[in-house]
Amino acid sequence: MTRKLVLLRHGQSQWNLENRFTGWVDVDLTDQGRAEATAAGELMAAEGLAFDVAHTSVLMRAIRTLNLAIDAMGQMWLPVHKSWRLNERHYGGLQGLDKAETTARHGEDQVKVWRRSYDIPPPPMAEDDAGHPRFDRRYAALDARVLPATESLATTLERVLPYWHDHIAPQLRAGATVLVTAHGNSLRALYKYLLDVPEDTITEVNIPTGIPLQFELGDDLSVTDYRYLGDPEAAQRAAEAVAAQASGAPKS
Amino acid sequence: MTRKLVLLRHGQSQWNLENRFTGWVDVDLTDQGRAEATAAGELMAAEGLAFDVAHTSVLMRAIRTLNLAIDAMGQMWLPVHKSWRLNERHYGGLQGLDKAETTARHGEDQVKVWRRSYDIPPPPMAEDDAGHPRFDRRYAALDARVLPATESLATTLERVLPYWHDHIAPQLRAGATVLVTAHGNSLRALYKYLLDVPEDTITEVNIPTGIPLQFELGDDLSVTDYRYLGDPEAAQRAAEAVAAQASGAPKS
Repeated sequence: MTRKLVLLRHGQSQWNLENRFTGWVDVDLTDQGRAEATAAGELMAAEGLAFDVAHTSVLMRAIRTLNLAIDAMGQMWLPVHKSWRLNERHYGGLQGLDKAETTARHGEDQVKVWRRSYDIPPPPMAEDDAGHPRFDRRYAALDARVLPATESLATTLERVLPYWHDHIAPQLRAGATVLVTAHGNSLRALYKYLLDVPEDTITEVNIPTGIPLQFELGDDLSVTDYRYLGDPEAAQRAAEAVAAQASGAPKS
Repeated sequence: MTRKLVLLRHGQSQWNLENRFTGWVDVDLTDQGRAEATAAGELMAAEGLAFDVAHTSVLMRAIRTLNLAIDAMGQMWLPVHKSWRLNERHYGGLQGLDKAETTARHGEDQVKVWRRSYDIPPPPMAEDDAGHPRFDRRYAALDARVLPATESLATTLERVLPYWHDHIAPQLRAGATVLVTAHGNSLRALYKYLLDVPEDTITEVNIPTGIPLQFELGDDLSVTDYRYLGDPEAAQRAAEAVAAQASGAPKS
């Protein structure tokens, strides 16, 4: 039996547009980001995808992307599960800074290290920072000690994988077709796990925004096939655009 | 400890506007219905309501109302549970008919009986009707024998209450503040249960659309207070408008 899993990265947010590090800050989509979400839904509908369940983060830009996509598919009734474990990588003390501010404070080389190393996190957000997740009601049921004040891709993967193992993988094993709508780095963590990408190359993998990435999985959830839906050239261009942005600018 | 429960009825749908019996047909909100949902969210935000969890049906007009309301509240991250048990009353063979068609087929007195009696359902939808819920993927996990082809308010209440007992009530007992966004008759069923309204008067109770109805509940979930949020006169006018519509026209 072939199982299908689709990963969908949210489209442009206000801070993508302003070139600011977003992380766990709850920034909304721009009109372009909304249009990307609807187009992704239309693409999935055209492919005949019939989901059984969907997962997303507790951040507005991913939730809205999911809502718009399943609305465009006529599948608003799908069960949707929201988890902090699918959030974007926490960008620590960089959150809110734009490219110029970050470079001025820390230097370009240092910023590149934080962005492109696998396991070096940016400086943490101060514990008494009003933006610390422990002051946010949506995380109130969690032990404050599990809430990050900064993350590397390595620690992002460590908190994403329990959700994969406990929630997504069992549904796929049971035969469900599953949609996960999330963020550049939480999806990168799943991508690394699914395709066994080494630590030193995963940070060069850029999942384009708004283009559904479909995996076909065998009984043991090994990947038998994967591809971007729609026009392959469009996916290629989108991946290159993300990579180009990533070469200098902040990303969410 | 005081628990809070808010019931919110979806606003105008396309078939409300066209005066057609809707029931389980998945009709969308009109622009006015969307505006009602957003206004309801703004009203709940102004009251300082901080929900822990929300419930809705598997019908688009209720899901969209919930999405718009919690978006307006900045609470898109809330866990949302969707259940067929919160669907509108199934209107059987009347679904899709407008007032003139219904009266022409069945006579005004008979239609009034179906609309205002507690336990007399309209004629059932044919088992092979393409609109029967057993052909709808969102109900595919259910035994076809639990899927209604018509419902009275009595049978609607019978299928709503298990959801109350198993999902909503335990959350309230645990101290959660709960939002339920649903339909005229599924909410009427909860209203009857919460306030112990007799069978012969409950069909005269009209919950206005788009105006949050807040209950305060004691430890045993007995109602200690309830009121419509916002301007009491607006709630009164809205209830009268619903009652006036109900005196002749179909309702969803």
